[in-house]
Amino acid sequence: MNPVAPILLTPGPLTTSARTRQAMMMDWGSWDRDFNQMTASVREQLLAIIHGEASHYCIPLQGSGTFAVEAAIGTLVPRNGKVLVLVNGAYGQRLAKICSVLGLAFSTFETAEDQPTTGEDVDRLLREDAAITHVALIHCETSTGILNPLNAIAEVVAKHGKRLIIDAMSSFGALSIDAREVPFEALIAASGKCLEGVPGMGFVFASKEALDQAQGNSRSLAMDLHDQHVYMAKTGQWRFTPPTHVVAALHEALLQYAEEGGLPARHKRYQQNCDTLLEGMQQLGLRSFIPAAIQAPIIVTFHAPDSPNYAFRDFYERVKAKGFILYPGKLTQVETFRVGCIGCVDSHGMQAAVDAIGQALRDMQAL
Amino acid sequence: MNPVAPILLTPGPLTTSARTRQAMMMDWGSWDRDFNQMTASVREQLLAIIHGEASHYCIPLQGSGTFAVEAAIGTLVPRNGKVLVLVNGAYGQRLAKICSVLGLAFSTFETAEDQPTTGEDVDRLLREDAAITHVALIHCETSTGILNPLNAIAEVVAKHGKRLIIDAMSSFGALSIDAREVPFEALIAASGKCLEGVPGMGFVFASKEALDQAQGNSRSLAMDLHDQHVYMAKTGQWRFTPPTHVVAALHEALLQYAEEGGLPARHKRYQQNCDTLLEGMQQLGLRSFIPAAIQAPIIVTFHAPDSPNYAFRDFYERVKAKGFILYPGKLTQVETFRVGCIGCVDSHGMQAAVDAIGQALRDMQAL
Ligand SMILES: Cc1ncc(COP(=O)(O)O)c(C=O)c1O
Ligand SMILES: Cc1ncc(COP(=O)(O)O)c(C=O)c1O
Repeated sequence: MNPVAPILLTPGPLTTSARTRQAMMMDWGSWDRDFNQMTASVREQLLAIIHGEASHYCIPLQGSGTFAVEAAIGTLVPRNGKVLVLVNGAYGQRLAKICSVLGLAFSTFETAEDQPTTGEDVDRLLREDAAITHVALIHCETSTGILNPLNAIAEVVAKHGKRLIIDAMSSFGALSIDAREVPFEALIAASGKCLEGVPGMGFVFASKEALDQAQGNSRSLAMDLHDQHVYMAKTGQWRFTPPTHVVAALHEALLQYAEEGGLPARHKRYQQNCDTLLEGMQQLGLRSFIPAAIQAPIIVTFHAPDSPNYAFRDFYERVKAKGFILYPGKLTQVETFRVGCIGCVDSHGMQAAVDAIGQALRDMQAL
Repeated sequence: MNPVAPILLTPGPLTTSARTRQAMMMDWGSWDRDFNQMTASVREQLLAIIHGEASHYCIPLQGSGTFAVEAAIGTLVPRNGKVLVLVNGAYGQRLAKICSVLGLAFSTFETAEDQPTTGEDVDRLLREDAAITHVALIHCETSTGILNPLNAIAEVVAKHGKRLIIDAMSSFGALSIDAREVPFEALIAASGKCLEGVPGMGFVFASKEALDQAQGNSRSLAMDLHDQHVYMAKTGQWRFTPPTHVVAALHEALLQYAEEGGLPARHKRYQQNCDTLLEGMQQLGLRSFIPAAIQAPIIVTFHAPDSPNYAFRDFYERVKAKGFILYPGKLTQVETFRVGCIGCVDSHGMQAAVDAIGQALRDMQAL
């Protein structure tokens, strides 16, 4: 295995701080008051990020982000509901897949992978189909890095009296979402993304009103957020064994988040990372896939160099040898690769990554 | 929070070694070859423990142990199946709850909490109800510490041509189960129990034949073990973001498990822990709830001292102040508390725990 830890330029798991990892050096009893206080503190800190104290519960869930997304849909959409899923990438398609596997009625609206859904689209779709009860979308579609216009869509959904489910997995904590201004029924994210914790738990901000009415909706025991919430409210404990070390790491990561200056500071650092990356790659002659105006400062998709000497595997290994882990592209039609802007890294680190990428491509004679 | 880490005498999370926790000090890319090799190594080492290489797949799953139990039942029991659930404690009841929430046909057979189910019981029940396709049981019922006679029951189930699902959460790795001798369709355990990893993932040993036929059974995307297996077999990767640090800790814990001498050594240490505990507590005048012959060396339930000065909360805090975390009882009729025998602790540690318990009860004037 690797003696020197590389920097992860991947959209979670990502590079965490040594202090965050150090928080995992202790074992915690899951029944113990000290651990329950840590869980409560994590939930409070998370709620504060969206200013959701009055309107929403924060319900943590064991497992990866997808578990929390499925739990939110399975718990909040009643059996006679219908979900309109907005798709412009792989994670949007996963939302549709979840509805399908859960046996829920749903329809999809798909745009090209470099094309955001608009409020007008949603307005038209909701006028055309009165059966729709919920709209589900991806905030930052991590498969490309495109940003969908959440606020405009939320407004339209609310105007129609419908309910919004937001997968904000890769944007939460870095891109501002204010529950006092943006109406939504559920917003889902996870420990190992922009909060810079380690992966192993997700969390759902669920509207208090909606969650209180959601008893019995879930066809899963483990992913029943209503049960999870009621039990936690009563006992302060997780229903089933929590990933104690992951919770401890997230707690420590949240303290550092606040110390850094909260969301504005996190956003600023990631934006600088993204700017450094885009500028540097442009100088190398590498084109990004998403237009700048709708590029989220989370992850950037680049077209592969147009050279017969380029092969992603080789490129990946060369850049890894220089200390950086990249991410493969997720587009089917065009050859691409991705570089994350998130994690415990700053613009100096990003510049070093750009330099490593340039050197690797030169070594491959692929530039 | 606590400056000195107490020893956890709880049945997971439990006390891990510093070396295991140290393995979490590095971040891993979930797409990277090094991490995939670690996942493969973990799966191989787990399969070897049950000698299941020829007969079973080992499918890891994000989340707590309950997620893996629900995933096994949801993936392996077809929609027209019927499950006989053997119950003598809270985890058996949870099995029944899972069947109920999943909408599966099931019946339960319940014995008293200090009464194991027998092979004869199961033989009679299977003769009485031909609709039963699967039998589900708890190996060590952690709510009391009782051991159910797995081998006898497995034999009867096989004789009837039915399929067995074993929740071996708290026994796997310490009590021997050999897939070449004990016929079962699925056996479920988790990272943070007798293997002494940290909590955050479960795993299911599923019969190859049964899993290969299980496509489309699951009504969950995240907990579809068929999907999880097929994707992992094809790519070497987890379907959704793995709890990378938990996997790394389990990998390191498994290396130490082998170095210690594998299952026989682990079993021996826990048996010594259990013996030290039982003997020491008896000397204090504290009675255990489960008869010695059916007491698993995993966790022991003790009757609370028969004194008006005893209160669990006070007792718990006093013992915690001396460096040991106990576990509350889980019986509804009798006042009890539990002490785990598992984790990175030996009989000296157990003796120290007994001494702390004795001192605490004397200080409370409850002995
Ligand atoms: C937008 C989005 N949704 C869902 C997920 C799925 O999360 P996980 O891989 O943790 O299940 C991701 C993961 O990166 C994501 O970026
Ligand atoms: C026998 C048994 N089954 C199931 C579980 C549930 O596991 P978890 O709490 O990890 O969901 C436990 C937990 O201790 C257990 O002991």
